[in-house]
Amino acid sequence: MTASPNELVERIAGFTIETQSWGYVSTGTRFKVFNTPGTPRTVHEKVDDAALVHRLTGVTPTVALHIPWDRTDYAELRRYAEEQGVRIGSISPNIFQDDDYHHGSFTNPDPAIRAKAVATSVECVGIMRTTGSKQLSMWVADGTNYPGQGDFRRRRAWLQDSLQQVYDALDPDMSMILEYKLFEPAFYHTDISDWGQSLLLCQELGDRANVLVDLGHHALGVNIEHIVATLLGQRRLGGFDLNGKRYADDDLMVGSTNPYELFLIMAEITHALADPDPGIAAGAADVLFKIDQCAMVEEKLPAMLRSIEACQIAYAKSLLIDRDELRKAQDTGDVVGANTLVDSAFQTDVRPFLWQARELLGGPADPLRAYLDSGLPERLAAERIGAPAGW
Amino acid sequence: MTASPNELVERIAGFTIETQSWGYVSTGTRFKVFNTPGTPRTVHEKVDDAALVHRLTGVTPTVALHIPWDRTDYAELRRYAEEQGVRIGSISPNIFQDDDYHHGSFTNPDPAIRAKAVATSVECVGIMRTTGSKQLSMWVADGTNYPGQGDFRRRRAWLQDSLQQVYDALDPDMSMILEYKLFEPAFYHTDISDWGQSLLLCQELGDRANVLVDLGHHALGVNIEHIVATLLGQRRLGGFDLNGKRYADDDLMVGSTNPYELFLIMAEITHALADPDPGIAAGAADVLFKIDQCAMVEEKLPAMLRSIEACQIAYAKSLLIDRDELRKAQDTGDVVGANTLVDSAFQTDVRPFLWQARELLGGPADPLRAYLDSGLPERLAAERIGAPAGW
Amino acid sequence: MTASPNELVERIAGFTIETQSWGYVSTGTRFKVFNTPGTPRTVHEKVDDAALVHRLTGVTPTVALHIPWDRTDYAELRRYAEEQGVRIGSISPNIFQDDDYHHGSFTNPDPAIRAKAVATSVECVGIMRTTGSKQLSMWVADGTNYPGQGDFRRRRAWLQDSLQQVYDALDPDMSMILEYKLFEPAFYHTDISDWGQSLLLCQELGDRANVLVDLGHHALGVNIEHIVATLLGQRRLGGFDLNGKRYADDDLMVGSTNPYELFLIMAEITHALADPDPGIAAGAADVLFKIDQCAMVEEKLPAMLRSIEACQIAYAKSLLIDRDELRKAQDTGDVVGANTLVDSAFQTDVRPFLWQARELLGGPADPLRAYLDSGLPERLAAERIGAPAGW
Amino acid sequence: MTASPNELVERIAGFTIETQSWGYVSTGTRFKVFNTPGTPRTVHEKVDDAALVHRLTGVTPTVALHIPWDRTDYAELRRYAEEQGVRIGSISPNIFQDDDYHHGSFTNPDPAIRAKAVATSVECVGIMRTTGSKQLSMWVADGTNYPGQGDFRRRRAWLQDSLQQVYDALDPDMSMILEYKLFEPAFYHTDISDWGQSLLLCQELGDRANVLVDLGHHALGVNIEHIVATLLGQRRLGGFDLNGKRYADDDLMVGSTNPYELFLIMAEITHALADPDPGIAAGAADVLFKIDQCAMVEEKLPAMLRSIEACQIAYAKSLLIDRDELRKAQDTGDVVGANTLVDSAFQTDVRPFLWQARELLGGPADPLRAYLDSGLPERLAAERIGAPAGW
Repeated sequence: MTASPNELVERIAGFTIETQSWGYVSTGTRFKVFNTPGTPRTVHEKVDDAALVHRLTGVTPTVALHIPWDRTDYAELRRYAEEQGVRIGSISPNIFQDDDYHHGSFTNPDPAIRAKAVATSVECVGIMRTTGSKQLSMWVADGTNYPGQGDFRRRRAWLQDSLQQVYDALDPDMSMILEYKLFEPAFYHTDISDWGQSLLLCQELGDRANVLVDLGHHALGVNIEHIVATLLGQRRLGGFDLNGKRYADDDLMVGSTNPYELFLIMAEITHALADPDPGIAAGAADVLFKIDQCAMVEEKLPAMLRSIEACQIAYAKSLLIDRDELRKAQDTGDVVGANTLVDSAFQTDVRPFLWQARELLGGPADPLRAYLDSGLPERLAAERIGAPAGW
Repeated sequence: MTASPNELVERIAGFTIETQSWGYVSTGTRFKVFNTPGTPRTVHEKVDDAALVHRLTGVTPTVALHIPWDRTDYAELRRYAEEQGVRIGSISPNIFQDDDYHHGSFTNPDPAIRAKAVATSVECVGIMRTTGSKQLSMWVADGTNYPGQGDFRRRRAWLQDSLQQVYDALDPDMSMILEYKLFEPAFYHTDISDWGQSLLLCQELGDRANVLVDLGHHALGVNIEHIVATLLGQRRLGGFDLNGKRYADDDLMVGSTNPYELFLIMAEITHALADPDPGIAAGAADVLFKIDQCAMVEEKLPAMLRSIEACQIAYAKSLLIDRDELRKAQDTGDVVGANTLVDSAFQTDVRPFLWQARELLGGPADPLRAYLDSGLPERLAAERIGAPAGW
Repeated sequence: MTASPNELVERIAGFTIETQSWGYVSTGTRFKVFNTPGTPRTVHEKVDDAALVHRLTGVTPTVALHIPWDRTDYAELRRYAEEQGVRIGSISPNIFQDDDYHHGSFTNPDPAIRAKAVATSVECVGIMRTTGSKQLSMWVADGTNYPGQGDFRRRRAWLQDSLQQVYDALDPDMSMILEYKLFEPAFYHTDISDWGQSLLLCQELGDRANVLVDLGHHALGVNIEHIVATLLGQRRLGGFDLNGKRYADDDLMVGSTNPYELFLIMAEITHALADPDPGIAAGAADVLFKIDQCAMVEEKLPAMLRSIEACQIAYAKSLLIDRDELRKAQDTGDVVGANTLVDSAFQTDVRPFLWQARELLGGPADPLRAYLDSGLPERLAAERIGAPAGW
Repeated sequence: MTASPNELVERIAGFTIETQSWGYVSTGTRFKVFNTPGTPRTVHEKVDDAALVHRLTGVTPTVALHIPWDRTDYAELRRYAEEQGVRIGSISPNIFQDDDYHHGSFTNPDPAIRAKAVATSVECVGIMRTTGSKQLSMWVADGTNYPGQGDFRRRRAWLQDSLQQVYDALDPDMSMILEYKLFEPAFYHTDISDWGQSLLLCQELGDRANVLVDLGHHALGVNIEHIVATLLGQRRLGGFDLNGKRYADDDLMVGSTNPYELFLIMAEITHALADPDPGIAAGAADVLFKIDQCAMVEEKLPAMLRSIEACQIAYAKSLLIDRDELRKAQDTGDVVGANTLVDSAFQTDVRPFLWQARELLGGPADPLRAYLDSGLPERLAAERIGAPAGW
């Protein structure tokens, strides 16, 4: 049994994705940041773009903020966003760009700098209260470039202690999602380098600390859907930073490198949503899907629309896997049969169902085409003159 | 402060390594197994070689067995080994080579096959009692080759349940060390794919289940010494399968690909041995160092002697790191200074200390040369006619 | 402009793939070879399976042989194959499994062993004459496991000289296709490790030496379609060994890991077929598509049928890329637009066109289903009792 | 036979390395550039630092420039540098940081932008004439982020054509060294992605176009020393960009990740220098050793001194390989023996020979210590107030 067409359309329409404010601005590599016309200059213009994307797609009701990139009057920003039709989503503190963090933030040997990083993170908890955000999205960029530069276990003690202070500042209805990353900006070791490091920290922090899976933060070859399934089973999957990656943390459009992998990841989510264990299913329902990409050479709004569609396609296809038949094939050792069932769902062209879902949501059938034909690209390019926002 | 010359010599002499019975036999790739003259034909001849290596080096008092490759009268084998001067070390059950395991062992959908794999593992606990072994070294080779072939979370439940049955069969003075591996023989997902998977299972199993780190089982780029430090901090590092690797699970001579990495791993051990927390230090002292290599094209006994020396060199160099100075450099953000202290220890030629340690142990200064000049290679080649042992 | 439905069906029907005799037998990893019922025991039964696959699909008219695995009376085998409806395709000499090749074949320091490897390869040229084969498919497995084991440049001179002797033995209407591989069975260096090494050798050999691209033989991250495009531009792309890979040379079913990559590779082929330069187009038309997979846990004939379908799907989708629009997008820097055109072709479900192509070819619409329902699996399992063929 | 102590000291003293102007300034990741006190603010201060390093080490007589980062009055700069005791080395044109290069330089679809990139490169040839530089060091950063964004073969035609125009502008005593890089800043394909791409282009350009090997630009696992040996055999190795790398193009201190690999690379150079073929030996003698690192968190001058020492250590150790014995071991299939000879050279502590070589050159025995104790760090920090130079 797979989803019926009607169910499929409803499920697609109900699948929401968070866009992030830094996905609308000019970003690039260490070698160069290229701008594109119409790039937002202020946090309000970023929210404008997020709201536009939500009007076009109907499925991106929240926008994530990054502090201090989006520092402003938060109560006012909340009102502004809600007037535009979107809400403030997760909040990410930036504890890697001050000169003070030259030798680390939560793992800095200097207790004053650790305290500063904790304070910045706790400040974000206040911003969450003001904006109605419920998730603190933590990325600790700390690591070392050379053997000997740091003491792994001392650093871990500082890290755990710092995180605990931040965690303890959360309200009971707030949670922390904790990112891991193999490398960059550190090139010898990263303190939270993989899901195991993140999960260990979360276990010690408390029940409302969960792992954030960034699709671009794994060693080559690592099976991400297996990690996702494991975390779902532990009820510790907090959410995703969605992007595309081939080599390193490339931060490309979602699904642009390997759409099959994206589909297999979504298939673990939809499988868990139907789990007989209500705890597993509830955990899967709470997972945050956040876009986290950098449009380095391409137009930013089109890139965002493409990524959202890629997520929807993967999600929809995953609902077409015939789970009853699949279980039979698994139980009888029918390897080719089992894989054929998965492949058959993937081969299906689900775009017609996306069109119907968009109709149901009252938006255009082809958001990218609608945007390009709307005159908006030209208008934004004409209006947004002056220094674009960036990192 | 670094180790004094005398202390260094004593520490080297006291650093023991386990060799493994399958390190003395003919192994190879899926394309071909090449034999070399003098390869053991029986488990007794494997023990002979292990004992010879111990006589030559003085630091390999135990030999690991693999069941059923080494199936025999275990009480007799124990006596035989002890007569030769070595003891039986860890025991590894083989639950991946029977036709029954075509679709898995502990994760097989068929409960009868899971029970068989459990029974084989529990049989090994009995062998441990007979032979005096204290460590059950578990490698679960299960995984899948294709998306859909298995259900990750159902498999994990079977895996946990099977492992628990084996764990519960252990005597109170026995422990389990649980291996992880990124891939091979499975090429889509492996159930115990990384240290995080292994640690999670160990946490649920009990206090005497610890993680086994095989140096060849990581994704490219992964920082192994950081994992080692983390496990030491969790008191969950059970031991090592030592070998060299460049691409996949190459199982080459230890240290032959990147001796600096081996040194940095050893440096985490020696650092933890000196930890002010007695629990950390005791955990580090209990770590098992087991060679796990396959001499595919090279002579087997020389390869074993080279690997043992590589471990000793790495261990000795790690004792030369000036930890007091290093901590100062770390605390003052002196990156180049900290790294220079580590590098300086690595640059030191410690072979003279190895010679002294061997003298202290009553063996030859150059075990490889002593072996090659002893006439033994020719004698073993002449005596050991007929089918060599293999996998 | 993309292909019309009729053209698409005809192009699919005309796209032929070579299956290989060793794809029908029992293969596995170094740890274990699992058998499946009905596995061929002789070269004739392998040809039977190849012919069956051709009857089911209509697109696999040739079968590759591997010598000496398929050693037999070749004139008789040719007649037998042709009676079954298939022809003998490329011939691969095996110069890696004799004990003599312990230290290499074409790069062995011993000139007698180099001469033996050359003689075995030249023997294959004779087999080509007898069987009507036109392509000598060379894999030189040589390499080293340790620094110092070989002298890179001396080995290369031997390699070039040996290959030249083989090349010179070819008839004017025969060609050599020369494989490269990053690693395995050698784990330090492989003499022909990448397309650059292979191309350099081919340049020196002569015009009828071309590069063979095995999809599983690259370092992680490497962009295979870019290599394919480069070789097509140099008129040096001889063919493909098609399989799926995630980690190492996994030899899985084609397209099972990343179907998008397979599609992008096919897109380079179909793009070159339409090149205004007739030399480029002719070169693309001569490319050999050979399956080179190992069904390690799955049923072998179903695996082969799945792989053929995966190739057809990728090929068909690649014909749906609107090349005129794509060029416009490329020329105007419309990055998202260009990628959307490629993605749109990939999203299309082309299976209906496959069904029509199969109808055109007179075969079943669903070869895998037809095979499974034919009673053949049971009949072959019942008939083929006794030792299955393997490597 | 290995080098005698005297010869060793002389060889170390004669082994020269080029430092690069951008190695002295503030660089970082896309997330943040951290400054360190005393960073040069102008090209003259960069030259000051290069000259200081040469005074301290005696082995870095040239400094590479990057245009336009180092744009100035070049005749004056030449005089200034020579007064400080160094000469201008290779020149690198920057054709990746102008807004015009948003969609590529030599491969841009717009002929005007290709012409601009050619003109900038040809301008560098003029700078070479003025400064006495003989090597044009070309890095073409072009590539794409998404399938479809570019046409591989059209781009290659533009690339070849553009490079040819630059090459043709060189004087007969000048050469081009052409870099390759797997990825970054492009994340789908890079036009010159590996040594094979670079070599193919060089073959078409002419005899004075050679491949530049950047140690950080390979896929993981790739055997760099094998590439080096191959290029030496083809007389197409132009030089090195030396740095350390673990994950991506990390640009760390040389030898800091894997000093054994650096040693093995140097061993190919010293082996070729002794080649009986005078063409091979002459080619090896012409190889440029250029540091290309970014001190992202560490002090820049100490980092440079450490890298130079790492190169010297690797070079010196490589001279200790007993090549006669090695050849015997290779010819007799003595794998462990051959590897032991290489390892034995590596285990030797060659720092005493470095001290003697520095004495011979009239510099301090420990350049890093001499620098740190000289008062210069404090003086430079005090003098160089204001905006540091960067990328």
